[in-house]
Amino acid sequence: MTESIEMCARKYARKDTQVYAVSPDMGVDSIECYVDEYLSVPGVLKEIVKGDREENADAYIISCFGDPGLQAAREITDKPVLGIAESAIAAAKMIAPYFSIVSVLDRSRKVTEDVVFNYGATQFCRSIRSTGLSVLEFGENPKKGLEALERESIQAVREDGAECILLGCAGFVDFVERLKSRLGVPVLDGVMPAVKFAEALVDMGLKTSKVNTWKYPEAKEYVGYTGL
Amino acid sequence: MTESIEMCARKYARKDTQVYAVSPDMGVDSIECYVDEYLSVPGVLKEIVKGDREENADAYIISCFGDPGLQAAREITDKPVLGIAESAIAAAKMIAPYFSIVSVLDRSRKVTEDVVFNYGATQFCRSIRSTGLSVLEFGENPKKGLEALERESIQAVREDGAECILLGCAGFVDFVERLKSRLGVPVLDGVMPAVKFAEALVDMGLKTSKVNTWKYPEAKEYVGYTGL
Amino acid sequence: MTESIEMCARKYARKDTQVYAVSPDMGVDSIECYVDEYLSVPGVLKEIVKGDREENADAYIISCFGDPGLQAAREITDKPVLGIAESAIAAAKMIAPYFSIVSVLDRSRKVTEDVVFNYGATQFCRSIRSTGLSVLEFGENPKKGLEALERESIQAVREDGAECILLGCAGFVDFVERLKSRLGVPVLDGVMPAVKFAEALVDMGLKTSKVNTWKYPEAKEYVGYTGL
Amino acid sequence: MTESIEMCARKYARKDTQVYAVSPDMGVDSIECYVDEYLSVPGVLKEIVKGDREENADAYIISCFGDPGLQAAREITDKPVLGIAESAIAAAKMIAPYFSIVSVLDRSRKVTEDVVFNYGATQFCRSIRSTGLSVLEFGENPKKGLEALERESIQAVREDGAECILLGCAGFVDFVERLKSRLGVPVLDGVMPAVKFAEALVDMGLKTSKVNTWKYPEAKEYVGYTGL
Amino acid sequence: MTESIEMCARKYARKDTQVYAVSPDMGVDSIECYVDEYLSVPGVLKEIVKGDREENADAYIISCFGDPGLQAAREITDKPVLGIAESAIAAAKMIAPYFSIVSVLDRSRKVTEDVVFNYGATQFCRSIRSTGLSVLEFGENPKKGLEALERESIQAVREDGAECILLGCAGFVDFVERLKSRLGVPVLDGVMPAVKFAEALVDMGLKTSKVNTWKYPEAKEYVGYTGL
Amino acid sequence: MTESIEMCARKYARKDTQVYAVSPDMGVDSIECYVDEYLSVPGVLKEIVKGDREENADAYIISCFGDPGLQAAREITDKPVLGIAESAIAAAKMIAPYFSIVSVLDRSRKVTEDVVFNYGATQFCRSIRSTGLSVLEFGENPKKGLEALERESIQAVREDGAECILLGCAGFVDFVERLKSRLGVPVLDGVMPAVKFAEALVDMGLKTSKVNTWKYPEAKEYVGYTGL
Repeated sequence: MTESIEMCARKYARKDTQVYAVSPDMGVDSIECYVDEYLSVPGVLKEIVKGDREENADAYIISCFGDPGLQAAREITDKPVLGIAESAIAAAKMIAPYFSIVSVLDRSRKVTEDVVFNYGATQFCRSIRSTGLSVLEFGENPKKGLEALERESIQAVREDGAECILLGCAGFVDFVERLKSRLGVPVLDGVMPAVKFAEALVDMGLKTSKVNTWKYPEAKEYVGYTGL
Repeated sequence: MTESIEMCARKYARKDTQVYAVSPDMGVDSIECYVDEYLSVPGVLKEIVKGDREENADAYIISCFGDPGLQAAREITDKPVLGIAESAIAAAKMIAPYFSIVSVLDRSRKVTEDVVFNYGATQFCRSIRSTGLSVLEFGENPKKGLEALERESIQAVREDGAECILLGCAGFVDFVERLKSRLGVPVLDGVMPAVKFAEALVDMGLKTSKVNTWKYPEAKEYVGYTGL
Repeated sequence: MTESIEMCARKYARKDTQVYAVSPDMGVDSIECYVDEYLSVPGVLKEIVKGDREENADAYIISCFGDPGLQAAREITDKPVLGIAESAIAAAKMIAPYFSIVSVLDRSRKVTEDVVFNYGATQFCRSIRSTGLSVLEFGENPKKGLEALERESIQAVREDGAECILLGCAGFVDFVERLKSRLGVPVLDGVMPAVKFAEALVDMGLKTSKVNTWKYPEAKEYVGYTGL
Repeated sequence: MTESIEMCARKYARKDTQVYAVSPDMGVDSIECYVDEYLSVPGVLKEIVKGDREENADAYIISCFGDPGLQAAREITDKPVLGIAESAIAAAKMIAPYFSIVSVLDRSRKVTEDVVFNYGATQFCRSIRSTGLSVLEFGENPKKGLEALERESIQAVREDGAECILLGCAGFVDFVERLKSRLGVPVLDGVMPAVKFAEALVDMGLKTSKVNTWKYPEAKEYVGYTGL
Repeated sequence: MTESIEMCARKYARKDTQVYAVSPDMGVDSIECYVDEYLSVPGVLKEIVKGDREENADAYIISCFGDPGLQAAREITDKPVLGIAESAIAAAKMIAPYFSIVSVLDRSRKVTEDVVFNYGATQFCRSIRSTGLSVLEFGENPKKGLEALERESIQAVREDGAECILLGCAGFVDFVERLKSRLGVPVLDGVMPAVKFAEALVDMGLKTSKVNTWKYPEAKEYVGYTGL
Repeated sequence: MTESIEMCARKYARKDTQVYAVSPDMGVDSIECYVDEYLSVPGVLKEIVKGDREENADAYIISCFGDPGLQAAREITDKPVLGIAESAIAAAKMIAPYFSIVSVLDRSRKVTEDVVFNYGATQFCRSIRSTGLSVLEFGENPKKGLEALERESIQAVREDGAECILLGCAGFVDFVERLKSRLGVPVLDGVMPAVKFAEALVDMGLKTSKVNTWKYPEAKEYVGYTGL
């Protein structure tokens, strides 16, 4: 999945933008519940610290539709950090009055619902639909996955009033083009807008506000973690 | 004002982006109340139609912080249309947990409040402050204007808990750098992010959803307008 | 349509109330999208200015369910200005716990949704349904229009829990009585309550607050408009 | 207090409107807390039943700013029933973008806050201020009461951004004119708009929807009450 | 009904907790509309005063799912007073992300909706469903009642996304166990959590805040009531 | 801090309740920002798994006012899991109409604000105030800490309208009694109500709903973690 995310990111990145896709050495195969979300965050934070110290990265993207650890990530660096859910929602609002999100397991819907609620997007979100398939099932049987995404997307447009479809999983980047041609409404993955908005923020010279909430953590002892 | 907006837009645009700033031939000197907002819209729409027909523009920016006529503009073209308030708010949310907006006359606050409310950003907006100066007074006495902006911005940070300042008027683009250096928090004009987000949307090949709400208007007779 | 609105208004007005229905000389045949809304406003404002200067009107009603330009209208006169959506919603809340709005094209729903949201009535509005017919189709085939309104209204009551039906178009005034007798719930057009609330406000001697937001526009040059 | 309410109501009522002000024979001297609210309702309901059976009333007004028992009252009659808080808020929204409510004891603020919240008016209400004086103190020392109302109203306008003042107690009807002349913003008592809106609803032939929520109570035994 | 509530309360109460279930001598057979709600309150308040004066009760529970008179009850005693709707909602939020409420008549839904809205629980409540049966019908034909509750509960889980069912009537305490075994999700009556939370508050020594809103009513004359 | 939390918990627990306070072997000295929150969660989850496997615990309490990882914790066990912020808010709503939260660093306010927003308690929360002192400073100089808490609490009551004070840090359990005696309003730590509500849920036999959102995580590989 990391590879296809990287390919998508590179496809939409400008020529002078270097994209590095990394998968933390701590974490989970796929992220589908709150446990998965939380267990992925320490590894994500470690990669950002490494990006600041070793790779001089200009911006960071957390490529999971729950945007796990986004606020924490903004504390440990002053470079812009973007979540793909946040980016997809911001882009969708610019091109459509209402969107729906189509995602993986039914249990995963609340993670997405929390994201939509916390970003103040409830009034623009017509529905959050699930395909009932796990991230790994999508990987194993992409054809079945595509059909399920198409089925739920069509219902979102016809029954729920969606005028734009957001794909609620970073593993769906390869489905965007095929769905777009079938649905007749814009289809958005989150990786694509996150890359473009990251470039935009860097071009503007914007950095995360360090005046209060998201300033660097106070110096204290972290037990059981290295690299932070 | 159109000139300084154009200079700002060009400063932040990529080298391969051509920026045309136009001032409609219908409209008002400055926009500070609902009458001004509404009277500016027919001219704005006309310019967009012209941009589509004659100039083959890739995207449009409505450069007034009330985003007047934004939804109407999205109906008459399928190219992305961005408002500067919408863009400033979207950018601010990516780099700060809370922002305040500093604007012109006290009476103009409700226009801004409506924008914030309708974009689902009320929970992120700590305050909307006014300097008590009109757009034209800012033009005539920029020093006084800068001082007033600084004074209100400092209060927004200290008393209201803002961690980012949005300048609520397109006429403020020249003040961004000076305010930023004095305030210690990010300062955002809306023109800058609107230009960058327009580039981003064009790069992604995204167009306004034409499936329902924002499709082209039904063919009907418009009396008293030409060019639509 | 102007005629039937005038007849409706006169039917419900008191004997000592004089009703003048005017159709601005700028504008659109029918109002069904944001472009239509915005293009109708300059003409509406011009008529209000004329009403103040030449006809000594006591109050104004904007007879389109999107209440286009309502806040602008309140700036250019101190006489009460009422929108028919605002009036219908206010009246509905006094006689029923929940209402639904039945309107014209599906694309027009968002205009109505924005109105409901901005008036703080979301919690009372069970649904906004569309008949799929344009304003002009209603004019050409009223029987078909009535059937469509009845069909959607019945569904609003049975499926959505509406206990009162608002007709979301000023062109529907002639359908009120027939729908009421068939539905068993109150049916409200907006013209009727707007007329009665206008009389009420005039009787009370109430005028629009001119202390800040809605005071008269600052003196400035309006290019391309006459009569303002 | 009943007398001055009646005088106010008669002053604003049309000539062909008969006003009867009654004080229930169960209840409390003044209403300032939830206990007072609840204890007043059985008597209010009894008067409405009596009004329907014996006096053939066309509409009812509950003249206490907490609108106690309003939904219950709408169940036991099909004639329009109006609350004075509801009416004042509806009228205020028609003439000003924001209002504040000035009321009696500080403890009474929550009753008013609940009303504003339940009517969907939170976004229009800038503040609820209290004078710290009880209803009875207003009766005993009207001069002191007027001064306290004026002081709080001025602060509501200057500090809270109110552009219209609502007087949050039916006992304040006599203060409206004097406050209006001093404040420079519209001042609204609730009795006045309730009378006018009641006339409006009756003129329109509107009755309370009896389809579900507010239909007549099921036949059942009420122990300890007579006259219901 | 009072007996089965008492049995339920005793079943869940600790051994050292004494439970007294009383039915006020004023009031209604069953509570299904706003009139019923309001007419029950004076009797409830009287019982609480009696509980304070004669029985030295440590806490009070209002056993009707509309929590009638809860704020008034908190004014006349400093002992904790709990509503069963409030308690059921608080407990549900601790064990499930979303709940639905299944209740009696369709008309009764708004009482429940108001409760959910006023407790800030709208975002957790998936639906409020009614069985269409009155409280008395449940008493006469419990088998039919159980079937209706089961049918609506299953739909709430399958169609509305509920993950916990709240029984919206104190008369349903006997159905909890049977429904739980059939539904596969937690089923909550309100009496059970109200008893346990009352014990918890008493153990903590917590009393109702008497600093402002809920302090004892001002001394005044109550006409037509005794025992307050 | 773990010790004083344990002492507090034991003080309020029933005699037949065994309390074990554990500090995870992964984590941070004190929790004051999002990084701290997220880094504490893996250790918390590990302790809960251990509690299920080895200690047969009946319920769990996460003793940090941000309730870090609460939803994840509810996934990995079916025993009730309570957060102290959630418990304090639930208890406060039962005894006061409005509360304020007084906490540590100013930067920590957003964590608390997110909690309040996500629990649907915004309408009851008058303010979130910070003392400007870190958790460790409270430990080093409790007298200074108490004074700061008292100062902010008094302002919350007088200026913000709080009628109950919640202490927004598990490290404040020792301050409850002293503040209560000085403030005249209820003062709540979160540990105390969490213990009592945990007992209540266990007594009721309630377990976390496992039907969808919070069911056990799908079997998958967790890299870099042991004990989950």
